[in-house]
Amino acid sequence: MRPTTSAVLGIGDDAALIASTENTELAISTDTLVSEKHFFANADPRKLGYKSLAVNLSDMAAMGARPRWVMLALTLPKGLIQGNKEWLRAFSSGFLELAHDYQIELVGGDTTCGPLNVCVQIIGEVTKGMALRRSGAKVGDDIWVSGYLGTAALALAHEQQYFCLEPSEIAECLPALHMPKVRLELGQRLIGLAHSAIDISDGLMADLGHILASSNVAAIIKMDKVPCTTIMKKYLHQSLAINCLLAGGDDYELCFTAPMIKREKLESLSNELFVPLTRIGSITRGVGLIVQDTQGSAIELEEPGYDHFRSGYS
Amino acid sequence: MRPTTSAVLGIGDDAALIASTENTELAISTDTLVSEKHFFANADPRKLGYKSLAVNLSDMAAMGARPRWVMLALTLPKGLIQGNKEWLRAFSSGFLELAHDYQIELVGGDTTCGPLNVCVQIIGEVTKGMALRRSGAKVGDDIWVSGYLGTAALALAHEQQYFCLEPSEIAECLPALHMPKVRLELGQRLIGLAHSAIDISDGLMADLGHILASSNVAAIIKMDKVPCTTIMKKYLHQSLAINCLLAGGDDYELCFTAPMIKREKLESLSNELFVPLTRIGSITRGVGLIVQDTQGSAIELEEPGYDHFRSGYS
Repeated sequence: MRPTTSAVLGIGDDAALIASTENTELAISTDTLVSEKHFFANADPRKLGYKSLAVNLSDMAAMGARPRWVMLALTLPKGLIQGNKEWLRAFSSGFLELAHDYQIELVGGDTTCGPLNVCVQIIGEVTKGMALRRSGAKVGDDIWVSGYLGTAALALAHEQQYFCLEPSEIAECLPALHMPKVRLELGQRLIGLAHSAIDISDGLMADLGHILASSNVAAIIKMDKVPCTTIMKKYLHQSLAINCLLAGGDDYELCFTAPMIKREKLESLSNELFVPLTRIGSITRGVGLIVQDTQGSAIELEEPGYDHFRSGYS
Repeated sequence: MRPTTSAVLGIGDDAALIASTENTELAISTDTLVSEKHFFANADPRKLGYKSLAVNLSDMAAMGARPRWVMLALTLPKGLIQGNKEWLRAFSSGFLELAHDYQIELVGGDTTCGPLNVCVQIIGEVTKGMALRRSGAKVGDDIWVSGYLGTAALALAHEQQYFCLEPSEIAECLPALHMPKVRLELGQRLIGLAHSAIDISDGLMADLGHILASSNVAAIIKMDKVPCTTIMKKYLHQSLAINCLLAGGDDYELCFTAPMIKREKLESLSNELFVPLTRIGSITRGVGLIVQDTQGSAIELEEPGYDHFRSGYS
């Protein structure tokens, strides 16, 4: 929006960076969840509390930062404030349990009355000059992703009745949608290994696209390398499943690029953290992102990315 | 909500404090403005942009902090996003002009689709250990307020047709409601002079009440000392005007306490900054806040404070 003046890094990455102590920078970020857009109005409040913090922690993970402090600005309809406050208690328990797990302190907030809106601000620390940025990808880098992609989007497609999973399958997929894992330790350990990183909140293609645009490079990825669960594999002959895998939102896995010489170290890290890390392609010169099928042909998606203003829950 | 662990100051003041450099603490705060609660849905977007930053700057003023960085999480209805984006441009101009005036950098944010909600996060700096807190009031302190109180509430009462001001009067009162002055320089200059401070966002009685509760003290204030404009004085025989003066929200003046020996310095500061500073009463032992009329009798208000969940614009 505007050039940076006093901040180390301004708008356009997973977090902004501001100088703190001689050796430390603060990573700061904000994320909003809106009813009927990011979650159903009747969502389980405990899970919503968890997720509203988790998506912000994911921004810290993508910077390699250690989250320390959080603020919570809650806008609540009258019905959720009055009465027995059960909703607020459940929401708080989900939020505070996750905060406790990572020793993050809730230091401020604001509660006001209006249509349900959850706005969280997170502040983390990262060693000066070491934060993972979107802009560091180099030609020749491997492209890696953590975990398995598309599961949250598949669960959402089922919930919205665009897709029909079997009962055992939806039970297995739902946690990815409602209580995503946060790759905090991975993010911090990628410092010194990765050249660039982002968290996958809007879908692999859109978010990898942000790395490419910020780094002025292109990429080729192999569709059959993109890591997915057995359930996803079963449905990959259907275009909706392919869309979920490549362009589904809400994964909160990390996508990062690293030089080839770091392959061994990254494989060791994967084993040490019990986090699957998969090479899905490589960074090339030029502009654009090509997804190849097993024959090397480019795959065209009907819906190239997740867009809050077009899709969502409503 | 929870005891502070790693923060210098947690929930319950105008901002939280976290340690930064050896000599500096960061003051962080968040404030949300909700459509039909804090502003009319058809509000002038430029004024709304200004005010949404101003109310956050006021929290910095109340801590004596120097604001440096700001993030903006905007939730906008489809109608304001699509089309010519005139609303967003006007909102941004009001927000960024004020940010520019105080050399504050917009470093991050989030835009999403939903019912209009403006959530701003501000980060400022203050010398270690010197921030103005609500909890520092001492028995014997003078109670001071800056500027004139109640004008914003009087303008709002007129807009809501609870009260009828003359055309020239409403024109004079409206700026206090839509584009409140921010007492940033005053706040910073009160360090070393004031024992405690708060900004008056919910009305004098409610906000002074927060100082008293945090400091475990009581107070007596004199109704006829509470500074008000000529227009307010004209209507003070009506109970609604008295309510606006003592319990109206949206003043964004500072209320602070200081020892008697600082009177002369505070009067000089008032002259130097061209900001009226008025002694309205004093801090006493005990519990509670008494407002006396000219005869020394206690004044009882019908509505003791501004409550977002009961009153507001809707």
